[in-house]
Amino acid sequence: MASSSVNARLVGYISLFFISIISLASGSNNKIADDEILKLEPILRLHQLAAISDSPHHIQRTFLSKASLEAGKLLQTWMEDAGMSTWIDNIGNVHGRTNGNNPSAPALLIGSHYDTVIDAGKYDGALGIIVAIAAVKSLHVHGLLEKFPRPIEIIAFSDEEGVRFQSTFLGSAAIAGKFSEHLLSVVDKSGTTLEAALKASSVPGTAESIIGMKYEADSVWGYIEVHIEQGPVLEKQGIPLGVVAAIAGQTRINVILKGLQGHAGTIPMAMRRDPMTASAAAILNIEHICKHPEEFMGDLEQGKRNHFVHEGALVCTVGEIATWPGASNVIPGEVSFTIDVRAEDDLVRKSAVSTIIKRIENISLARQVFPRVEIKHEAGAVICDSDLQKQLRFAASQALRKLPSSVFQGDKQCIPTVISGAGHDALMMAHLTKVGMLFVRCTGGISHSPDEHVLEDDIWAASLALKDFLGKEIPHEEFAS
Amino acid sequence: MASSSVNARLVGYISLFFISIISLASGSNNKIADDEILKLEPILRLHQLAAISDSPHHIQRTFLSKASLEAGKLLQTWMEDAGMSTWIDNIGNVHGRTNGNNPSAPALLIGSHYDTVIDAGKYDGALGIIVAIAAVKSLHVHGLLEKFPRPIEIIAFSDEEGVRFQSTFLGSAAIAGKFSEHLLSVVDKSGTTLEAALKASSVPGTAESIIGMKYEADSVWGYIEVHIEQGPVLEKQGIPLGVVAAIAGQTRINVILKGLQGHAGTIPMAMRRDPMTASAAAILNIEHICKHPEEFMGDLEQGKRNHFVHEGALVCTVGEIATWPGASNVIPGEVSFTIDVRAEDDLVRKSAVSTIIKRIENISLARQVFPRVEIKHEAGAVICDSDLQKQLRFAASQALRKLPSSVFQGDKQCIPTVISGAGHDALMMAHLTKVGMLFVRCTGGISHSPDEHVLEDDIWAASLALKDFLGKEIPHEEFAS
Repeated sequence: MASSSVNARLVGYISLFFISIISLASGSNNKIADDEILKLEPILRLHQLAAISDSPHHIQRTFLSKASLEAGKLLQTWMEDAGMSTWIDNIGNVHGRTNGNNPSAPALLIGSHYDTVIDAGKYDGALGIIVAIAAVKSLHVHGLLEKFPRPIEIIAFSDEEGVRFQSTFLGSAAIAGKFSEHLLSVVDKSGTTLEAALKASSVPGTAESIIGMKYEADSVWGYIEVHIEQGPVLEKQGIPLGVVAAIAGQTRINVILKGLQGHAGTIPMAMRRDPMTASAAAILNIEHICKHPEEFMGDLEQGKRNHFVHEGALVCTVGEIATWPGASNVIPGEVSFTIDVRAEDDLVRKSAVSTIIKRIENISLARQVFPRVEIKHEAGAVICDSDLQKQLRFAASQALRKLPSSVFQGDKQCIPTVISGAGHDALMMAHLTKVGMLFVRCTGGISHSPDEHVLEDDIWAASLALKDFLGKEIPHEEFAS
Repeated sequence: MASSSVNARLVGYISLFFISIISLASGSNNKIADDEILKLEPILRLHQLAAISDSPHHIQRTFLSKASLEAGKLLQTWMEDAGMSTWIDNIGNVHGRTNGNNPSAPALLIGSHYDTVIDAGKYDGALGIIVAIAAVKSLHVHGLLEKFPRPIEIIAFSDEEGVRFQSTFLGSAAIAGKFSEHLLSVVDKSGTTLEAALKASSVPGTAESIIGMKYEADSVWGYIEVHIEQGPVLEKQGIPLGVVAAIAGQTRINVILKGLQGHAGTIPMAMRRDPMTASAAAILNIEHICKHPEEFMGDLEQGKRNHFVHEGALVCTVGEIATWPGASNVIPGEVSFTIDVRAEDDLVRKSAVSTIIKRIENISLARQVFPRVEIKHEAGAVICDSDLQKQLRFAASQALRKLPSSVFQGDKQCIPTVISGAGHDALMMAHLTKVGMLFVRCTGGISHSPDEHVLEDDIWAASLALKDFLGKEIPHEEFAS
């Protein structure tokens, strides 16, 4: 660890010490205690966690790295501080559990991931864990944790980004029973297998030890995840929180158009079979299709159309393109490009994909180029549980009411419904149980970058919302947050 | 040299030996002698020249390479065989000259290049030299060379492709007085400077020795070049020969569009500032502009419009494109692409370029991306001399009449006017004198490739046409080809 991160941790601890003194001084004043637990402490802890990195220059905690193991242990102490019993499982996930008033009832799981991309921000993953610990700690401090009707288990997943072994969701896949044995022999850049990496971190590292981690469906009540939006919708709407309706399904397509390569100077426009202009036509058509879903979905009312176009229920992206031979004075013989199509509704996505493919075929026919269209990856959407959506929307609305009017002046009842275009641990957990997700506004929709930012008041709003979500299950007279 | 090319040369010489025997047997039969000189010998010589290569696997003769020097010496013997006095100049050009009946009159220059690209065809450059030697030899054999009213000088240029030193037209630039002294210090891939390469081939290699090569304008009557079309127009029209009206001017543009990079899954369509879709719109617009010149040039009669679109008087090409960061799941932050615009008329090209730039700016404004448009290279068009065009057209028409009807059944009077989109030595020579070019049909418009092909009868047509072009200046009763 670089000394700078040690220094950052010291600052964090010293700050916490002073907060504790203030806390003691305030005695039983719940309002002040909650301000500390739900507002100040989460901010401090996000900074402390961010200071634990495998690089002195940027934030980096890949699966089972030195910094990851250190971060896991710190999370464990924070879970214990929130009144939970804790353990680290066979794949590096950090668990904190409380029994509530019925240890044998199906448990509410709350999770997110503590691994990061390389040169990451402070909030992706970490926010969901820190906010969950804050909400549970608040109930614990108020003596309400044992009144909760079922166990609460916070899981800090060890791998969601998949940076080290190029396989995402290792942590949540193990819990959801979706871990594939063949992954144990996958190697990282240094040539270390996943199996060896596990063994080096003092867990068995066998297939059985991970497959055996699967939670039984009847032992689980549901799964909740708080996460930064990683998109700009909430910022644009001016609201700190949104409820996720679905995690989009995805189709990845590779397209190759073959035309007639030739000299840029000698072939008249009318005699060209140019795959570059054909690709340009295809790319504009792909954009048009995703902006005009009514064209392939029949009449759409305006609201539904807005949902697709303005709220991201259907998005199409061409991120890579290349020409062959790639010289400024040669009409390309071949152009290849990628298409990424995501939608909250699988039928919509499949209709969009087939419309796109049909359109590429028509353009190719008209322009006398030969298309090769290959679907490389396809994953269905996960629909978030409608009851959990309602409960999260109500809790978010309650949280916004509790914020000072100087912090939020908007419509507290109008919590937006958003689509998650990015995958999350909830995607895996949906194989096990019903899922719900709360999104937190992030500046400019920027993520996977040191510029990733969440307003401090929005972190507070998220903690408040999660506490309120939990509080709904505690008899009313006892829950007085 | 590889033994295969030596074998090929042997076969060539043996064939020529038998042709000579036939020739002797036919005695004074001019018809048979011309069939040999204008039809068979050029075909054989093109194959012989192609067999001289720096690679045993493909045709490759770069500037002053071993194979180039060998090829130059062979060309010299063929020029001598055509009754010319010969020399190799300070930049490796091979010259053959006859005095005609007035050694001090301005000379007609006929040229093309004997260097090649890597993995070249047999005809690019070589055809123009071989056909010129054949036409002169035919006049020589018929005793007509000394009746020509001025000197004829064939120049086989040493560098047109510019493969070795990345600087095209070294040979013709020296003759036209356009050689830049700084080129002497340019290095090839092996680190050899142009100066050292020249000295190694037994020429002075000094700036003075090359700059002093410039021909005086009043010593030159005009310049003629026969070249394969390198485009598909003549093939499409079913005619072996075409007359070049102009060598197109060229503008090369680099475009960078900067947008807002983002997650392909999380940014709704309506909130994107995607430089990829903006580039697609720009590319389609560029194509549209070059297919609809009437839009920026006011009302155009149909014939003129066809000239632009179907005959290549205006062509636009996007040959290279790249996205940053170039991942299928990321909306690009930046897209860069090249534009190559060529036109026979500089005003048309400049209007097209300014229309294209304006359109890119409008698209960028509408799509909220930032454009950076940079003109990297600009070269004016060369208009071929109208008298030379007429004379070449008449000579080509005469040549087609002389072909057996089994070879050509088309309209012998309708020699197409074509635009050369590619640069040629004539482009340099235009700095010195009036120029004319005759294009020869090539299969599929393919060039710079081992698939480059010219029909044997089309080579014959080219030799016949060039001989007829020369014959027009010889008193009619004496020229009876």
